[in-house]
Amino acid sequence: MPGKHHWFVPDGYLPADSSHGVPSHEAACLLNVGDCDARVRFTFYFEDRDPLGPIELILEARRTRHVRLDNANAIGGLELPRATPYAYAVESDVPIVVQHSRLDTSAGAYTLFTTVAYGE
Amino acid sequence: MPGKHHWFVPDGYLPADSSHGVPSHEAACLLNVGDCDARVRFTFYFEDRDPLGPIELILEARRTRHVRLDNANAIGGLELPRATPYAYAVESDVPIVVQHSRLDTSAGAYTLFTTVAYGE
Amino acid sequence: MPGKHHWFVPDGYLPADSSHGVPSHEAACLLNVGDCDARVRFTFYFEDRDPLGPIELILEARRTRHVRLDNANAIGGLELPRATPYAYAVESDVPIVVQHSRLDTSAGAYTLFTTVAYGE
Amino acid sequence: MPGKHHWFVPDGYLPADSSHGVPSHEAACLLNVGDCDARVRFTFYFEDRDPLGPIELILEARRTRHVRLDNANAIGGLELPRATPYAYAVESDVPIVVQHSRLDTSAGAYTLFTTVAYGE
Repeated sequence: MPGKHHWFVPDGYLPADSSHGVPSHEAACLLNVGDCDARVRFTFYFEDRDPLGPIELILEARRTRHVRLDNANAIGGLELPRATPYAYAVESDVPIVVQHSRLDTSAGAYTLFTTVAYGE
Repeated sequence: MPGKHHWFVPDGYLPADSSHGVPSHEAACLLNVGDCDARVRFTFYFEDRDPLGPIELILEARRTRHVRLDNANAIGGLELPRATPYAYAVESDVPIVVQHSRLDTSAGAYTLFTTVAYGE
Repeated sequence: MPGKHHWFVPDGYLPADSSHGVPSHEAACLLNVGDCDARVRFTFYFEDRDPLGPIELILEARRTRHVRLDNANAIGGLELPRATPYAYAVESDVPIVVQHSRLDTSAGAYTLFTTVAYGE
Repeated sequence: MPGKHHWFVPDGYLPADSSHGVPSHEAACLLNVGDCDARVRFTFYFEDRDPLGPIELILEARRTRHVRLDNANAIGGLELPRATPYAYAVESDVPIVVQHSRLDTSAGAYTLFTTVAYGE
């Protein structure tokens, strides 16, 4: 099955402000092209305190999931602080692919960024 | 020949809105630097339904193709829904390189993102 | 020496329009951390015509060069067409690192994208 | 431990202008998921002069650090010039992960870009 078991995203940041009624947010976009459901664990790292997690979710076989990191319901009830640098690691029991994206609406126009995470 | 046979993009999303007369869109940018035409297949993944595809296209030798994912004519007649998280896999019979980009014009200014896809 | 000899960028595009007196442009950003000058060759690929190049430049040891792709003087006199999808390959006789970036100023605000190229 | 010892970012640039009271800036985002503190060294490369550095910092075990490259205090007192193309290399005695991001506020709206650095 294609993909990796471990993925890492150093640049996490949920902007404090929003506009257009669209909250500034980040998403961890997961893809499981295999035939088995994936058990996926997120751990969140900070600059000046111990990591939070792991929180666990199931990513079904042949499905994508765009996990909203500003939505506590999407990540096991964990409320990530806004305006605070963080990072995260994703561990999966079957190979998956992870891409990280941010939408910042704070300055009255949208700006997006994305990168495939670092996997191994 | 340089490149890979399998490529994966977890973060696909066609924004609902547009401005400036320029539709918000995504492109799967393909590059075949080899001497043989490539037979390329796309499969599209969703959060809550089975995958669509594969759809097939030919990428000629020594050519690039910027495949517009909001244009059904470019992807075998398949109409991807807007405002719906998706992902995709690209399979090629000869090695190619794939980069994924989005242009979101919905908030009255442009914002772009891009990443080389995950290949193996 | 760290780096790769071959790099590929599928998504090249020079927007037709600009604003703020800042031309919309792309840059192929090269880094040579080694002790030998690098002989670097660019080849440009299109959707519907044969490739252009190679054009050659020297990237000195322990230097970066941000090669402006909208500037014919920077790429051996070659004038890349605007509003035309293209792609490019970079070949170097010593290992280097390549990152591709675009600045689009056409809609009255700036938008940037970047990715490390695909190397092997 | 996951990660790499050597990372490279060819496209560094600190825009001259800013708006909204938010300085245009770049960040080298570091993640150390291991159990040992990392000794991290930055070297900065330019187009037409010798490299600067290395400057050294400690990245604690199980921590992230978003190193602001426009802030001399964050990088050993080194003042990187604005409006000047540069690049950088990061070396660590234990494996880490590095992602590079820019926020450009100069045109009256924000634009972001990011990429995982090239590691080996």
